[in-house]
Amino acid sequence: MDKNLSQLLARACDAIRNEIGTGQVASYIPALARVDPKKLGAAIVTVDGQVARYGDADEPFSMQSISKVFTLTLALEQIGEKLWERVGREPSGNSFNSIVQLEREHGIPRNPLINAGALVVCDVLLCQRSPDQAIAAILEFVRSTSDDASVSTDPEVAQSEAETGFRNASLANFMKSFGNLTHDVDDVLHVYFHQCAIAVSCAQLARAGLFLATNGSDPQTHRPFISAQRARRINSIMLMCGHYDASGEFAFRVGTPGKSGVGGGILAIVPDRAAIAVWSPALTSAGNSHAGTAALEQIVREAGWSIF
Amino acid sequence: MDKNLSQLLARACDAIRNEIGTGQVASYIPALARVDPKKLGAAIVTVDGQVARYGDADEPFSMQSISKVFTLTLALEQIGEKLWERVGREPSGNSFNSIVQLEREHGIPRNPLINAGALVVCDVLLCQRSPDQAIAAILEFVRSTSDDASVSTDPEVAQSEAETGFRNASLANFMKSFGNLTHDVDDVLHVYFHQCAIAVSCAQLARAGLFLATNGSDPQTHRPFISAQRARRINSIMLMCGHYDASGEFAFRVGTPGKSGVGGGILAIVPDRAAIAVWSPALTSAGNSHAGTAALEQIVREAGWSIF
Amino acid sequence: MDKNLSQLLARACDAIRNEIGTGQVASYIPALARVDPKKLGAAIVTVDGQVARYGDADEPFSMQSISKVFTLTLALEQIGEKLWERVGREPSGNSFNSIVQLEREHGIPRNPLINAGALVVCDVLLCQRSPDQAIAAILEFVRSTSDDASVSTDPEVAQSEAETGFRNASLANFMKSFGNLTHDVDDVLHVYFHQCAIAVSCAQLARAGLFLATNGSDPQTHRPFISAQRARRINSIMLMCGHYDASGEFAFRVGTPGKSGVGGGILAIVPDRAAIAVWSPALTSAGNSHAGTAALEQIVREAGWSIF
Amino acid sequence: MDKNLSQLLARACDAIRNEIGTGQVASYIPALARVDPKKLGAAIVTVDGQVARYGDADEPFSMQSISKVFTLTLALEQIGEKLWERVGREPSGNSFNSIVQLEREHGIPRNPLINAGALVVCDVLLCQRSPDQAIAAILEFVRSTSDDASVSTDPEVAQSEAETGFRNASLANFMKSFGNLTHDVDDVLHVYFHQCAIAVSCAQLARAGLFLATNGSDPQTHRPFISAQRARRINSIMLMCGHYDASGEFAFRVGTPGKSGVGGGILAIVPDRAAIAVWSPALTSAGNSHAGTAALEQIVREAGWSIF
Repeated sequence: MDKNLSQLLARACDAIRNEIGTGQVASYIPALARVDPKKLGAAIVTVDGQVARYGDADEPFSMQSISKVFTLTLALEQIGEKLWERVGREPSGNSFNSIVQLEREHGIPRNPLINAGALVVCDVLLCQRSPDQAIAAILEFVRSTSDDASVSTDPEVAQSEAETGFRNASLANFMKSFGNLTHDVDDVLHVYFHQCAIAVSCAQLARAGLFLATNGSDPQTHRPFISAQRARRINSIMLMCGHYDASGEFAFRVGTPGKSGVGGGILAIVPDRAAIAVWSPALTSAGNSHAGTAALEQIVREAGWSIF
Repeated sequence: MDKNLSQLLARACDAIRNEIGTGQVASYIPALARVDPKKLGAAIVTVDGQVARYGDADEPFSMQSISKVFTLTLALEQIGEKLWERVGREPSGNSFNSIVQLEREHGIPRNPLINAGALVVCDVLLCQRSPDQAIAAILEFVRSTSDDASVSTDPEVAQSEAETGFRNASLANFMKSFGNLTHDVDDVLHVYFHQCAIAVSCAQLARAGLFLATNGSDPQTHRPFISAQRARRINSIMLMCGHYDASGEFAFRVGTPGKSGVGGGILAIVPDRAAIAVWSPALTSAGNSHAGTAALEQIVREAGWSIF
Repeated sequence: MDKNLSQLLARACDAIRNEIGTGQVASYIPALARVDPKKLGAAIVTVDGQVARYGDADEPFSMQSISKVFTLTLALEQIGEKLWERVGREPSGNSFNSIVQLEREHGIPRNPLINAGALVVCDVLLCQRSPDQAIAAILEFVRSTSDDASVSTDPEVAQSEAETGFRNASLANFMKSFGNLTHDVDDVLHVYFHQCAIAVSCAQLARAGLFLATNGSDPQTHRPFISAQRARRINSIMLMCGHYDASGEFAFRVGTPGKSGVGGGILAIVPDRAAIAVWSPALTSAGNSHAGTAALEQIVREAGWSIF
Repeated sequence: MDKNLSQLLARACDAIRNEIGTGQVASYIPALARVDPKKLGAAIVTVDGQVARYGDADEPFSMQSISKVFTLTLALEQIGEKLWERVGREPSGNSFNSIVQLEREHGIPRNPLINAGALVVCDVLLCQRSPDQAIAAILEFVRSTSDDASVSTDPEVAQSEAETGFRNASLANFMKSFGNLTHDVDDVLHVYFHQCAIAVSCAQLARAGLFLATNGSDPQTHRPFISAQRARRINSIMLMCGHYDASGEFAFRVGTPGKSGVGGGILAIVPDRAAIAVWSPALTSAGNSHAGTAALEQIVREAGWSIF
């Protein structure tokens, strides 16, 4: 059965190899800019314990916005449904760092998977913690869900994010002016830049996302990370909002919840079946991995895993 | 088994009876304004032929925007993927009749389930037909999918829509100015106002939507309405865009593809399982049935039918 | 003194002859598209009766949006300050036919010199008149202010405007949906398309605008067209809003109230001194005459007529 | 003649005394919030040396945004027309601290009299100076134009501005992300917060603005502050943009260039005639002094000083 899964994964990824390298690698920080655009990794972990790897599946890459799924989970566990008083759960219809909607909607971000929403989530995580403790808690959660204590943060990336993060600083100050950040703007940004800098491989990422396919509890360690209802709701938010203003495109083509990052990674959840992670650094104009999306489309089609 | 389904439906609907009447009945045309806000109907049709009814399940109501799912299906069958050159498939992040995005995006509507997009779809249907033929084709398609030749258009509603449809006339003229309507504006509006005026009961509507839960073919008559892939893609568009700027809320709470209309109806699709129709005329501020959504949330939860 | 004025005008226009032809002639209707881009006309009429002409000063051109100044004057005389309940007097910060602001501001146009505002003005003029009477009243007013009964409407232009006026039809229907048009949309558009089609020469236009430089009364015929205060206020609106989203540029460079039209004409008012009309058909991207603006800048500088 | 001017000023201000106190005093910082809303001061300085004072004309108040006129003058002297590559000169059509336009226009503020534009101007002033030197240069310029070395900055106000200036920090970081700030964001904000905190009386402010009514040179000290053409252009920008999204209203009612501040002051320029300063702390919803505007309207009407 593992063999069949591996064959399926290989067949799907081989079929889209000519898509590799189309698009642009994120260039706003040096550590991302120098990544080889020809990389392609993929990993599947099923709810019944099968694992399949392809290509650069064990090479770590920068999580970037994929980390928002994990901080959202933590914040929901921490304050529950009160989170939704400070951040919405609707698609934004705009690019990931847009500030327009935020003005019209008085500092309440559309959802927790755009930058503004993720900054609010960081502010929530700071409620019981110092900035360093918040960073540690996020990292610990990713280690815990991936069942791999070696996952760590790339300090060069975190430093670069801070040096170039003027748009995020603008968003944070903007929400602060509306009273939707309760902590110091610099502390919130500090946490945010570090969560983006967590490095994972496809194999680690698929494993880390598995709890979202299994009603919130890890099927192997049996650790309960979140309630079944919340796991399903996080999946719904991933589907609606996980690819910025190309979320509809992802739902249309791939047909599963997913969250992308500008590091070129995508985490896709197949409820009750599997978690899939892909990585290929060259991005579409909307900021999502071009070859990664193609690979996911192929994998889901071959496996018959569309939720629609 | 039918009995179990009926019991589940009754239990779910009974549980939310105190939600009935909350909200406002659509008041922009007389025929909608005089509908009793206390109505609640619901019907489930499963892929294996079970049927359950509740309350006012056999009373006809105005389809309104739910008709957009059927015209989209027709247009896709007619011109295929070329449709996407003229209309997007992303959530709009705006209310159903917003014109702002249309200006920024040069007359290309965000998706076929907002008014602007449905007008483009009407324009496509006019390519091989006169306005009256287009109206007849739409009605015939709803009759065909519902397997019920008695479905018809309410002429009073169609007339009222035309008399008050200035916002739709504005949208149509706006797209015409960008060259994204090829037919006469008045003809496009004529077709659109008539599709909105089709009257169906919950029982008819659930039956009519069943093909979307069954890979595009009717499981009983075996008529192939659309390819399996297209059926899944229509479902994805319903989930992303079916409730205007409250689509995220519907995905979060209900967790299935769905499309609402200001007549108070909602059609929900549970892929590979069932089609559900609910009706209760009082609407939320976003224009979706308040009690209908509550009923769907309860039904899907009791049945364990969330796609997430 | 006439001789000095003529010399000043000739000197100013000669100085900018190399600007003639830069830009694009309006092409959305045939009658405008075929006008020779090399035309340049200019005329000055002073409050003490001097007249100067240059180049194509006696060749009629299409008034287009310049007519909005005259319909605004008529509407103010008709309903007075109540006009400002239905249209604002702020710069729009957007292009002349934008619909975005209109949505945010619930169908109240920013000012009477953008298309939406001019449509409201037409609606006001229809309060006491049939469409044909309204058109006749506007034409009569231009004839009266220009003291020239030969001014007339170009029927080909009016017809073409109607055939291509989808954006204006969109604006009118949009305002109708907010209740800010009281008459039939088609009637309002009919009047609007005819006011745009009035043809005048620079000599006629400068003469027609003179009352705005002379406290509202004609200095020669002594006809009182409007109160002194209203004349000054119309001038302020022309300065703030007369060149769409390039109004600041016109104030900065020329420094007088002015109103442009896509026919290539501009009417400028020098309070207590003179009215100036220029015409050159090639337009900037903002829709204002390129060479005409350059000529006005030169004339005002040579004459020392900046109001700043 | 001084006596006549004083009488005119007294008559105008007396006539609007019942407007005093209407509106809200700015409350975002304590030093502004505790100012008595019943204050009314006014001063006129004419080009031929007459001076008139009324009410609280000698009581200092916080300049706030009025300082933008003086920093604009300094920046124009420093880098000339190149300034317009980094900031526009069009009305914004939006509130003073809006960020929406800035996103659509890629970090280029509409004009130098909105907050974003003033921040760019601060960045220009930092090109040859440390932050403290820039603050000193601005203060020296206001002292110089007012011919009064006692003008100074209120350190409590500057400190409060810094503590609550999240919206300005958001704007600055936003422009930095587009590359339209060349210095450190904190340095730019430091200068900006200090320029806002300069305190002047009406008498000092009218004197300080006189050079704008006299072709750029002080008529008494004969110091040349700026060229005649630039003075006129600054006046045009004040008229178009000096009262945020109520600039049209000010032009319509008052009819002269003017710049308001949330401290309740307004500086109005009557080209070739006079400079006028008024002060009354209670503000309209657009952030402009309610009674101050009424006083200016009355003064300009009585004096016949409308530029229209």
